[in-house]
Amino acid sequence: MITFRKAQAADLPAIVAMLADDPLGAAREDASLPLAQGYLDAFDAIDADPNQLLAVAVEGGEVIGTLQISFLAGLSHKGAWRGQIEAVRVASHRRSGGIGQRMIDWAIVQCRARGCNLVQLTTDKSRADAHRFYERLGFTGSHLGYKKSL
Amino acid sequence: MITFRKAQAADLPAIVAMLADDPLGAAREDASLPLAQGYLDAFDAIDADPNQLLAVAVEGGEVIGTLQISFLAGLSHKGAWRGQIEAVRVASHRRSGGIGQRMIDWAIVQCRARGCNLVQLTTDKSRADAHRFYERLGFTGSHLGYKKSL
Repeated sequence: MITFRKAQAADLPAIVAMLADDPLGAAREDASLPLAQGYLDAFDAIDADPNQLLAVAVEGGEVIGTLQISFLAGLSHKGAWRGQIEAVRVASHRRSGGIGQRMIDWAIVQCRARGCNLVQLTTDKSRADAHRFYERLGFTGSHLGYKKSL
Repeated sequence: MITFRKAQAADLPAIVAMLADDPLGAAREDASLPLAQGYLDAFDAIDADPNQLLAVAVEGGEVIGTLQISFLAGLSHKGAWRGQIEAVRVASHRRSGGIGQRMIDWAIVQCRARGCNLVQLTTDKSRADAHRFYERLGFTGSHLGYKKSL
């Protein structure tokens, strides 16, 4: 049985390992222990912010998935709240089993519960599998996502 | 002289008017006064959140531009903070005068000051002018942006 819950500090090594176990993540993350201080600081900032929800999917005590939801107030759409989903990962040995879909379904329930009337996310243009996945779940790829490193 | 500052409640009618004065905004916003309660509630939520910055560009006492920055903690990129820019608008009678670029430059300074090492935004695929604008400012359109209405 898979359950979903807010992440705890003890989940952090498993979460970072999933972020690193990915073609894009491998080049930019460092899952070695003890974890770099940046990860610990970021966890504390997320954990302390009521508009951030870092979550894990757990089965039999093992963390097998993660995602982060940011609940964003904005004036657009007559003051609508948006849920923004980031950093979605499923443990490599559990992929293609429908866990990703259950995670997104769960995230959408959280967004509804917080009064959001829009859910948004971006994916790298190279992640063709992810595009098919989100389109199947009813997302529309209506936007271009721009980034600039500082 | 154009100055930039955090938006105040008194700026709200001018901000919403700019959101509505736009091909996409015209269909989804309502700038009639008194403003719909949703705008007031959203302003209060943004104003109370230290990780949100709703800003205006002002010249001679007139609000001529607006944007919102969300400062987002995340685990990716070794726990990097990101600045996310949303709802960028310049008053229609002041467009094409370089104000948009000055607003984004100002927003990037705010993001650096908050320790962000990435700035991100999405634009509707139909906004070709916006794409050229952000590419000229050094942004890379590396992502697809997906949305789903709830």
